[in-house]
Amino acid sequence: MALDDQKSTLKFVGTRPERPDGLDKVTGRARFGADTTAPGMLFGAIVRSPHAHARIVKIDVSKAEAMEEVKAVVTRADFVNDLEYTPGGADEFWNVMENVMAGDTALYDGHAIAAVAATSALAARDAVKAIEVEYEVLPHVTDVDKAMASDAPVIREGAADHSVPDGLHPNVVRYHESGHGDVEAGFAEADLVIEDHFTTEATHQGYIEPHACLASLGMDGKGELWCCTQGHWYVQKYCAALLGIDTSQLRVTASEIGGGFGGKTTVFIEPVALALSRKANRPVKLVMNRSEVFRATGPTASASMDIKIGMKKDGTITAAEGTFRLQGGAFPGAPCEFTAMCAFAPYALTNVRQVGYDVITNRPKQAAYRAPGSPMAAFAVESVIDELCNQLGLDPVDVRLKNASREGTKASYGPRFDRIGLVETLEAAKAHPHYSAPLEKGQGRGISCGFWFNHGGETSVSLALSEDGTAQISVGTPDIGGSRSSMALMAAEVLGIAYENIRVTIADTATLGYNDVSHGSRVTYASGLATIKAAEDAVQKLCKRAAQKWGIPEDAVKWEDGHAVPSGPNAGDFDPLPLREITATMGSTGGPISGHFEATPEGAGVSFATHIVDSEVDPETGKTAVTRYTVIQDAGKAVHPTYVEGQFQGGAAQGIGWALNEEYIYGDDGRLQNAVFLDYRIPVASDLPMIDTVIVEVPNPGHPFGVRGVGETSICPPLAAIANAVSAAAGVRMRSLPMSPPKILDALDQADG
Amino acid sequence: MALDDQKSTLKFVGTRPERPDGLDKVTGRARFGADTTAPGMLFGAIVRSPHAHARIVKIDVSKAEAMEEVKAVVTRADFVNDLEYTPGGADEFWNVMENVMAGDTALYDGHAIAAVAATSALAARDAVKAIEVEYEVLPHVTDVDKAMASDAPVIREGAADHSVPDGLHPNVVRYHESGHGDVEAGFAEADLVIEDHFTTEATHQGYIEPHACLASLGMDGKGELWCCTQGHWYVQKYCAALLGIDTSQLRVTASEIGGGFGGKTTVFIEPVALALSRKANRPVKLVMNRSEVFRATGPTASASMDIKIGMKKDGTITAAEGTFRLQGGAFPGAPCEFTAMCAFAPYALTNVRQVGYDVITNRPKQAAYRAPGSPMAAFAVESVIDELCNQLGLDPVDVRLKNASREGTKASYGPRFDRIGLVETLEAAKAHPHYSAPLEKGQGRGISCGFWFNHGGETSVSLALSEDGTAQISVGTPDIGGSRSSMALMAAEVLGIAYENIRVTIADTATLGYNDVSHGSRVTYASGLATIKAAEDAVQKLCKRAAQKWGIPEDAVKWEDGHAVPSGPNAGDFDPLPLREITATMGSTGGPISGHFEATPEGAGVSFATHIVDSEVDPETGKTAVTRYTVIQDAGKAVHPTYVEGQFQGGAAQGIGWALNEEYIYGDDGRLQNAVFLDYRIPVASDLPMIDTVIVEVPNPGHPFGVRGVGETSICPPLAAIANAVSAAAGVRMRSLPMSPPKILDALDQADG
Repeated sequence: MALDDQKSTLKFVGTRPERPDGLDKVTGRARFGADTTAPGMLFGAIVRSPHAHARIVKIDVSKAEAMEEVKAVVTRADFVNDLEYTPGGADEFWNVMENVMAGDTALYDGHAIAAVAATSALAARDAVKAIEVEYEVLPHVTDVDKAMASDAPVIREGAADHSVPDGLHPNVVRYHESGHGDVEAGFAEADLVIEDHFTTEATHQGYIEPHACLASLGMDGKGELWCCTQGHWYVQKYCAALLGIDTSQLRVTASEIGGGFGGKTTVFIEPVALALSRKANRPVKLVMNRSEVFRATGPTASASMDIKIGMKKDGTITAAEGTFRLQGGAFPGAPCEFTAMCAFAPYALTNVRQVGYDVITNRPKQAAYRAPGSPMAAFAVESVIDELCNQLGLDPVDVRLKNASREGTKASYGPRFDRIGLVETLEAAKAHPHYSAPLEKGQGRGISCGFWFNHGGETSVSLALSEDGTAQISVGTPDIGGSRSSMALMAAEVLGIAYENIRVTIADTATLGYNDVSHGSRVTYASGLATIKAAEDAVQKLCKRAAQKWGIPEDAVKWEDGHAVPSGPNAGDFDPLPLREITATMGSTGGPISGHFEATPEGAGVSFATHIVDSEVDPETGKTAVTRYTVIQDAGKAVHPTYVEGQFQGGAAQGIGWALNEEYIYGDDGRLQNAVFLDYRIPVASDLPMIDTVIVEVPNPGHPFGVRGVGETSICPPLAAIANAVSAAAGVRMRSLPMSPPKILDALDQADG
Repeated sequence: MALDDQKSTLKFVGTRPERPDGLDKVTGRARFGADTTAPGMLFGAIVRSPHAHARIVKIDVSKAEAMEEVKAVVTRADFVNDLEYTPGGADEFWNVMENVMAGDTALYDGHAIAAVAATSALAARDAVKAIEVEYEVLPHVTDVDKAMASDAPVIREGAADHSVPDGLHPNVVRYHESGHGDVEAGFAEADLVIEDHFTTEATHQGYIEPHACLASLGMDGKGELWCCTQGHWYVQKYCAALLGIDTSQLRVTASEIGGGFGGKTTVFIEPVALALSRKANRPVKLVMNRSEVFRATGPTASASMDIKIGMKKDGTITAAEGTFRLQGGAFPGAPCEFTAMCAFAPYALTNVRQVGYDVITNRPKQAAYRAPGSPMAAFAVESVIDELCNQLGLDPVDVRLKNASREGTKASYGPRFDRIGLVETLEAAKAHPHYSAPLEKGQGRGISCGFWFNHGGETSVSLALSEDGTAQISVGTPDIGGSRSSMALMAAEVLGIAYENIRVTIADTATLGYNDVSHGSRVTYASGLATIKAAEDAVQKLCKRAAQKWGIPEDAVKWEDGHAVPSGPNAGDFDPLPLREITATMGSTGGPISGHFEATPEGAGVSFATHIVDSEVDPETGKTAVTRYTVIQDAGKAVHPTYVEGQFQGGAAQGIGWALNEEYIYGDDGRLQNAVFLDYRIPVASDLPMIDTVIVEVPNPGHPFGVRGVGETSICPPLAAIANAVSAAAGVRMRSLPMSPPKILDALDQADG
C-alpha cells in the first residue's frame, strides 16, 4: 500500500495512548543513573585541573592512599596507555582516553587528573583534597578566532588530519569544503548581496540528571556497569578499550535517563569508575555534581561564521557562501562539516560553497547537542536571508518557498533529495493564524527554516511472545523521547494486539546485538523499522504454526488484525486463529516464538522545519521575551503525536535558552566562570510562552510507516527565528548569541551611535 | 562426522577452563537473591499457620495496619481469586495460588496466611505478630499410608483426577500404572521371588541460599522482580496469573543462585512480594529464614513401596512388580509416575508392572529434588535385587549386566531405548579397582544402578558478536551447575574463538524468548543445543559477509577454526578471513551480526549410572560411615568434565544425607519438629569420603556433540547403593530411610530378637 494511502488504515500508529513509563516516573519508581547500589559499594570522586592548560609535573597520591576510608586511587597509569593516536580522529580511543583522564597535560579547566574510591562520598571528597598535583602552567586559548590566530598557543602538535590545508594554525584539526556551481558568477547575478559575520557561544544540553554510574570490574576482566547513557554499546566498546578488556566481557545496562540531548553519547566517568572498581575489587558509584557537568562534560561547540548571500529582486537566491569556524574544546570533533552541510540545505541553489574548520582550544571536548552544528548555521544563514528580505521588501515565507529544496533538488552538500516536506512546512506556516496575526508595538516576528540529516545506524531488535498472547520487545536504544511507546505502537500495528499488551525493554549490552547510540534522531526510524521487521518475523512464524495446525501450506496463511487467516484456495476453510491461541501451545508445536532483526538501515529521511516566533524587547533593560512560538515540522508519520509535539516544544524551549541567555563564560585565566545553574541561565517556565505545534506528515519512503526522526530538526530553526524576531523588535540586527540583555543594549547603543 | 569419531576433533568441548563465575563467587561480587536493593524499599514478612490443618475463621489485620512502619498488609483477597481449579493438576494456577497464600483453610504447618511490608525487617516481624488469626483446628494426617486409610481426614474433596480408580480414599489424587508382559507368569518361572516393603522420608534439597526476592509492581500492572530461581519464565508466568497482570509486563531477573536442586522451580514468596509492592506502591524485599524454608517450601515426597521380583538361579529376572505410594503435601504433584517409570528402567524385562499413587497430606507441597521420584524407587528395587543376588550367591554386577537395558530394549515404562550407556557403566564398575578392593572387617559393599529420563523443554538462545570479535550469549536457564561455562565451550567450538572471549549471560524474561526451568538435567543438552544452533546461525551470517566481500556465492564459503574460507571452485582464491575482521566492519557491511535459536528440542537422551559404596556400621551406637564411594555415569559427552564430576559428587553427597540422616520429623500435632539445620542433619565435610568419579561417554544421538544431562541421574543410585552397603555391613536388610542410628539399632535388635 502506498504510504500516503496507508495512513487511514493504521489502527495504533498515530494514536496517543498512555506512556508506559509514566507511573514509574511520577511515583519515583524509575531508576536513574544514581539510583542503584551494590553490596560493599564505594563512592568515587575525581581530582580536576584548576588550570586551562598545564603540564602535570607530579601527582602525589600517598596521603590519600594512607587514609583508612580510601580503597583505591587511580591515575592515567591505571588505564591502557598504548592506544593509537589518529590525527583528527574525534572518536578515536586515544582522544576519548585523554579526555577521560589527562595524560601528561591538563587541557582544560576541569580536566580529570586522578580519582579515588572511598567508603563514603564524604571521605572520597576529602581524599580528592589530599591528592597533591604539581602543575607547570602553560599558555591557553579558549576562543575559536584567537585559537586560529598565528600567535595562538598550540594545544597539541600533530593533531590535524590530512584534510587541513597547509598554512593554517596547528589548532585547526579538521577542514570541510563542499558545494557546487560558481559562487562568484552567482553573486554577480544578484541584485543585492549581503555578507555578514555571526558568532554563537557554547551552550550545555542542560540535562537535569548529572552523569552517574555504578561500576563493578573484576581482576578477571569481567565487569558490569550501570549508567545513564544514550548508548550503552558505545559505553561498552570505549570502556573496554580504555580498560584493556574484551568488549563482550563488560555488561552495560542503561538506566532510566534524565535527559541527554546528545550530551550522553560518550563516556566521562564510566571508565574511571571501572578502573577504581578493578583496583579496589569493590563496586564503585560515581556521580558528577553540577559543576563537574558544566566544566567537564561535552557542551556544544561555539562558532564564528561568515555568510554571503546574493538575491535577485524577485527573491531568487543566486549564490550563497559560508565559512564556519567551530571550536570543540581540546580535542577534534567540533561538527564543522555538519554546520557547513546543513547551512544551505533548505535551498535549491545553483551556486553554493561552504567551508568548515574544526578548531581545538583549552575547553572541554564538545559533545553532540541535538542536530550538532546545524542550529548555529541556520542562525547565520537565516539571519542574512531575513535581512535580504527586509532590504528587498519581500515576504520571508514567499522567498523561502521560491528557493525551497524539493524532491529531486541537488542538495547544497551533494546528494539529491528524495521525497521531503520543506515546502509543506512553509505552506503550513503561511496558512497558520500566527503568521498573519497583528503584532503589538515593540514586538517583532521572525521565521526560519531548519534542516537535519537524520540517521539510521546499527540496530538490533528482538521480540518475544508470551504464552498469554502478550509481547515483549528488546531494543537497544535508550528511551530519550518516548521510544518505548513508539515501538509498542508499531509492533501492535504489525502483530494486531493491543498496545497495552506489549512491554518494551531497553536491553543491556549482554542480551542483544549491537546498537548505535540514541542519536541522529534515529530511534523511531531505525529501532522502529527493526521492531516492525522483528514483529513481521514473529508473524511469519505464527502463520507457520497455523499452517501446521491446519495442514495447509505456509504461504496459504496470511495475518490479519492479530489472527492467522487461511487464504487463497484455503480461504474460509478454517476459523481465524488468534495470536494468543497459537502462543498458548507454542511450546508443544515447535517451541517459543520470537522475532529478530539486525541491520544498519539506510533511508532515515532528512527533515525540515519552519518556526514562527514573536518577540519583544525592552529597550531600557535589554530584556527580551518570546511572546508567541509556533513549530511546524515534517514528522513523516507521527507514531505517537504527543511525543512528537513534545520534541517540537522541547527543541523550541532549548532554542530559546540558547538564543537568549545560555553561554559558557570563560575568564582571562581560562576558567569557566558560571558552572552552576544560578549563573548559567537555562529558561524556566516563566521564560517560555505556550509553544504551538503543527505536525506535517510527508512520508519518508525509507520507513514502512513513513517515519522521519523529529528530535533534532526542532532545534535547528529557533536561534535564527528568535534572532530575526528580536532583531525586528529591537530594530537592530543581532549577530551574536546569546542575545542577553547586555548584548541587546550594546547593539542598541551601536545602532544609535 | 559420526559422534564417536568427532570426539578427537573437538578443540574446546571436553577441556577444563576456569569457571567464568569463579572470581565473582570467591570475592563476594556475585549477587544472590537477597543482594539487591532499591530506593524506598520495604521489607516483607509472612504470617504462617501454626496448625497442620485448620479453617481460617477470621484474620484481623487492623493492629498491624495501624503501625506506622507498616505500609501494606495482604491476604488472599489481594490476589486473583477466580482461578480455575483442575482436579489432579499439580502445576495449575489454582494449586500454586492456594499454596502461596491460604484461602479459607490452612493446609499445613507453615502455610502462608497473610503478609506485611514495613520500613524495616524488624518492624515487619513485629507486624506479623500483631496480626490476629482465628483458626478452627481440623483433623490432620501427615503420613502417606495413614492418609490412604479409610478413616483418614479428607484434605480436599474432589481433588482427585480421572486417573484414580474408584474406591480409593479421596486423598489419592493421581494414579499411574504401566508395564508389559504377564507378571504372574513371570513369577511362576522364577527360582526365587522376593517381596518386600520399603519407606523413605521426605528430605529437603538443603540449598544454602534461602528463597529471596525484590519485587516492584505498579498499579499499572507493570513490574519487575529479582529473585533466586531455577526458572524465571515460570516465575513470570505464575506471578502474572496470580496477580492478574500480563505476563509480558512483569520483567523477572534471575539472581545468582545458591543452590536449587529442583526446589527453586516454583514460586513461594515471589507473588507475595509483588502483591505487597503493588499495595504499598514501593519495592518490597522478602527473604525467607531457614525455618520458613523447611516448613513452607517444597521438600521431596516421602514414599511407601512394595516390590516383588522373581529371579532364576542364573540371575535372569523373570518378573518385577512395584507399588509406589508417594505423599507430596497438601496438593497434587508427588511424582508417583516418575517413581514407577524409573523403578525398573535399568532392566530389560519381559514381565513388568508398576503402579503409583499420588497422595495428599497436611504437609508442604513437594517440589522437585533431582530426578524426582527416581531415587526412592531405586532404593526399593535395587535392595530387592541385592537380596536376590545374596540369596542366590550371584555377583551383583554380573546380574545387572545380564538383565541390563540396551539400545533397542523395550523400556519398563513403554518406549524403546535409543543408544544408551548402562552396560558401559556396569562394565566400568566391574573393572574399577574399587569393586575388587578388599573390605575390612565390619564393612560392607553395595552397588546400585540408577536411571533418569532427562528432558528437552522450551529453549531460546541468542548470541551477539562484538566488533572486537568477542561474543556474548544470552541463555534463559539459570546457571545451577556450570552452564555458563558449558555454553561458552560449545559456542567456542562452533565459532572458533577462544572460550575466554565469550560471555554467557542469564538473560531476564524481558530480553529473550521463553525458556523452561533449569530442571530435568536439560540445560547442557537443550540450552547447549540452542547455543550451538545460534552460533551456527551467526557463522552463516559471517560466511555471507565474507562472500559479499569476496564477490563469490554464499555457499562457496565455509567456516574453519574461526575463519571464513573460500571453498569449492573458489578454494584458495582469498586468504582466510578471521572472525574479528568481519565483525570489525559489520556495521557498514550489513549491520550487527547475531544468531538466534528457539525450539523445544526432543532427544535429550536418557542416562544411567552405577555407584559402588563401601560402608561400615558401629553396632554399639548405630552410627554409619561411608568409607569409599565411586560414581560411574554416562555423560554422553562431558563438555566441561570438572563440572560433570562435580555433579556426580554432589549427587552422591546429597544421597548420603538422604540415605543416612535427613528426614522431615512431624509430631503428633502435625507440626514439623526439626525445621533448622541443627536438627535436620545434612552431611558435613566430616560425614563424606572422597568421592571418586568415572565419566563414561556413550554419545547421545540427539545432541550435536552427544551430550546427555548429568545433574539428576547421579542421585538415583546412592540411596540403594548405600542401603546395600549398610545392610551388608550391619548384616541386616535396611528397609527404611534414613538409616539413622536409632533405626540401625532397631534393625539390629529385631535381627537379634
